[in-house]
Amino acid sequence: MNPVTMIPIGVFHSCFAEKFGIPRQPGLTRHAHGYVALAPDYARADAFRGIEQFSHLWLSWVFHLAQKPNWSPTVRPPRLGGNTRVGVFATRAPFRPNPLGLSVVRFERLEQNGRTLHLHVRGGDLVDGTPILDIKPYIPYADAVVDADGGFADHKPEAGLPVHFSDLAEQQLAQLQNTPTDFRDLIVDILAGDPRPAYRREETTRDYGVKLYNYDVKWRVTSGQVEVFQIVKC
Amino acid sequence: MNPVTMIPIGVFHSCFAEKFGIPRQPGLTRHAHGYVALAPDYARADAFRGIEQFSHLWLSWVFHLAQKPNWSPTVRPPRLGGNTRVGVFATRAPFRPNPLGLSVVRFERLEQNGRTLHLHVRGGDLVDGTPILDIKPYIPYADAVVDADGGFADHKPEAGLPVHFSDLAEQQLAQLQNTPTDFRDLIVDILAGDPRPAYRREETTRDYGVKLYNYDVKWRVTSGQVEVFQIVKC
Repeated sequence: MNPVTMIPIGVFHSCFAEKFGIPRQPGLTRHAHGYVALAPDYARADAFRGIEQFSHLWLSWVFHLAQKPNWSPTVRPPRLGGNTRVGVFATRAPFRPNPLGLSVVRFERLEQNGRTLHLHVRGGDLVDGTPILDIKPYIPYADAVVDADGGFADHKPEAGLPVHFSDLAEQQLAQLQNTPTDFRDLIVDILAGDPRPAYRREETTRDYGVKLYNYDVKWRVTSGQVEVFQIVKC
Repeated sequence: MNPVTMIPIGVFHSCFAEKFGIPRQPGLTRHAHGYVALAPDYARADAFRGIEQFSHLWLSWVFHLAQKPNWSPTVRPPRLGGNTRVGVFATRAPFRPNPLGLSVVRFERLEQNGRTLHLHVRGGDLVDGTPILDIKPYIPYADAVVDADGGFADHKPEAGLPVHFSDLAEQQLAQLQNTPTDFRDLIVDILAGDPRPAYRREETTRDYGVKLYNYDVKWRVTSGQVEVFQIVKC
């Protein structure tokens, strides 16, 4: 069949500076801020006229960090502990024949400054720099299938771990500039979900860092609790 | 930004043989049957292992009949009577910078016959021959935003018109072979939605045909009622 060529209409600027730590689906934290910076050809307000009527939007995007020369018919989703193989089309895994991502996000606002146009959203699960292919309104009567059965991913992952900040981390947090006022809430939401790979969850001595905005948030898990011990500029 | 090349993984075989008459969103009739015929490279059951756990799927596809050399920043959605212009990104209109379609459908079954693999679904709004780019499970906790506000498309279009079959049409329907047992229900659902363009709705003398499966279903609207007067082979 004929290949189809798509041109990104913009790039996503995300609080998630790298893949590690990104929630597995959108909507798991409402403190994740980001915006689509429209490319010059698409940075025109008339192409978005009426979009403010919709509370939610679909972003179609490219898994640009997850491209391999070959695709594998089966993958091991983290939801199944990382050991069980299921078909790639039965998952939302990034490595797929066409690297298409799909996320519903909450519309926040359009911001025009001279020739730049930014579409601000929250709740996304996109890494910084993600190419955006399309933006569509979320149409509840068609898209919200309330009686759908979600198989092995039917329930929201539990955000189970309590998150504690060390005195140093609290102090560093208080001194940050240029981060949203809900940056602490974002850290709590992300770390409570325990981003460690399943096979590392037995270890208790390892230090991790998640890069949020321009900061490296350092943490470890001890006695069933996340300890944020340092927040340093990347 | 760098263009992205995608290769269709299959083609959709649809009860909708042409664009005219297709409901404006998926899910408006559960009698719309179709299947993805996977291309040879993707016609492998292991790539779909576990998909039967999910009641609904996302299809990402190409608006292959709706490509123009240039895109228009505004469109006139039928929902607004066809006269009001809104931004293309505030609509699901087919003519958009990247011709990406997105539909949630109900999973029916996988059917393997030798080297062919068909993924049967229902409730789609895809025209016959649509190239499919991706298939993903519908994950209710992320995708079903029950409190979303759908702006000018917040309510389901009303399927308001009563549909009556002439004696000839009933007779022809009874003699059809190779159509699903719910073909009549499909006709009723489609025509009750009044597929006429808004600017034609004042006319009462015009005959229409919608092509469903291999049949041309002929109808007109008289006295606020749809009259199906003939069903002929295409």
